[in-house]
Amino acid sequence: MKVFVIGIGLIGGSMAIDIKAAFNDAIIYGVDSNKEHIEQALNLGLIDQAATNVQLKEAEVVILTTPVDIAVRLLPDVLDEINEECLVFDAGSTKKNLCEVVAEHPRRRNYLATHPIAGTEFSGPKAAIANLYRGKTNIICEVEKTAFKLQEKAMEIFNRLGMRIRYMDAASHDKHIAYVSHLSHISSFMLGKTVIEKEKNERDIFDMAGSGFASTVRLAKSSPAMWTPIFEQNKDNVIETLEEYIANLEKFKKNIEEDKFPEIYKEMKETNHIKTILKGIN
Amino acid sequence: MKVFVIGIGLIGGSMAIDIKAAFNDAIIYGVDSNKEHIEQALNLGLIDQAATNVQLKEAEVVILTTPVDIAVRLLPDVLDEINEECLVFDAGSTKKNLCEVVAEHPRRRNYLATHPIAGTEFSGPKAAIANLYRGKTNIICEVEKTAFKLQEKAMEIFNRLGMRIRYMDAASHDKHIAYVSHLSHISSFMLGKTVIEKEKNERDIFDMAGSGFASTVRLAKSSPAMWTPIFEQNKDNVIETLEEYIANLEKFKKNIEEDKFPEIYKEMKETNHIKTILKGIN
Repeated sequence: MKVFVIGIGLIGGSMAIDIKAAFNDAIIYGVDSNKEHIEQALNLGLIDQAATNVQLKEAEVVILTTPVDIAVRLLPDVLDEINEECLVFDAGSTKKNLCEVVAEHPRRRNYLATHPIAGTEFSGPKAAIANLYRGKTNIICEVEKTAFKLQEKAMEIFNRLGMRIRYMDAASHDKHIAYVSHLSHISSFMLGKTVIEKEKNERDIFDMAGSGFASTVRLAKSSPAMWTPIFEQNKDNVIETLEEYIANLEKFKKNIEEDKFPEIYKEMKETNHIKTILKGIN
Repeated sequence: MKVFVIGIGLIGGSMAIDIKAAFNDAIIYGVDSNKEHIEQALNLGLIDQAATNVQLKEAEVVILTTPVDIAVRLLPDVLDEINEECLVFDAGSTKKNLCEVVAEHPRRRNYLATHPIAGTEFSGPKAAIANLYRGKTNIICEVEKTAFKLQEKAMEIFNRLGMRIRYMDAASHDKHIAYVSHLSHISSFMLGKTVIEKEKNERDIFDMAGSGFASTVRLAKSSPAMWTPIFEQNKDNVIETLEEYIANLEKFKKNIEEDKFPEIYKEMKETNHIKTILKGIN
């Protein structure tokens, strides 16, 4: 099975590791505009060969794991190049733009829009790890627009990688993911920014910050190259979540200013309910 | 060594475990208004005996680990009860109020104001764990107001528990900790609230939320009984941090609205610097 991974970083590299482990006959071809990443991916054994888009006609599977701005630009070109038996899927954190850009493409049925909810705050080929996808949810959008045989091929891969499948339309995906992922990243980045701005003496932060701060600010280590286009493509939903988040913070601040501490207690008590929701998330 | 722990939960219970392990002669007396917690603490072996404040005159060490509103009320009474060789220290997340309330107390020199930066999002005796304090920072305020011999006694305990010591005045402590701890808790609680409000269908949250969300929202599991009085006692600093945090979020939102994505990239890139700062925090 000839698998082309376009964009060899944390996401594509981790997928390459697991596919190689799960399919004896898999040969992984890496495509990346960053020569250093290709070099690293070869040295780390993530890919068997470096390749170019020109070779895509040989591909049986193409996995598009670039930042989403590049994915939107590349996907139509990739569909132009591939043979008609080839499965193409992506792993981007936004789905609506990608689905729209190929809606009328003659090879639309070769493409499956997917979003495996998996990752770490690190990036690049060196961040790739085995079993990143095991037990994780993979959200598939507009499944009915993909050829049935290629759906099956994709499911075989996702099953062997240990993913649970959920189906959703692209607009709902983008709306929900804004709350449970995109907003988390912004809240974390802005928390990091606020603290860095205030505490110019880093030694003080380091000494006083505990595991709680480290956990809350962890996502502020994430790659700006990956996240900027996500916020751009999901602009309307992200703005909506930010407005609600800011309104909640304003209300909390007002309650403190007005000494409404029983109200603050009540809000936190209700939000403790997140315990139940989080059970089972790795 | 007769050690009285007033408030047997995560913080006091974990300290009891480690002190018992580090001092052969330690006998731990537990004082708590919550009878169920006393019962659990006895069953878990966190304490050797239940006790009352009346017995405090026998104490060699008193550790005050109640929520900070109760600590402020109890500390003067505790100082009234103890013998003159007794060391009293607390572990609260605010220091200014506690220091003020006993500033003129005749037994002020028996008290050491401390804040071990350690904890988890859980609470109660069942949350107590061994080695919670190992490698963690303990911030000591107004050390010069504590009798030298009792400082030594405290250091012997903190050393055996594996804590690093930092000295700070109470006002600076409260200001800095607002940024690296109190604000993290509010950002996390409000993130949880925003998502819960929006996503009434919890199954959807569960399916789409990944480890990033779980990490960012972890502190929203924390105890409201512990955190409400912290926000109350540190009101001015918390309001200041919230204003700066909200202003940063507003600016981020405005940049998205005005399609200033290069600016957003730049902000995130700069905030990535948190990586360096966080190195070494457990």
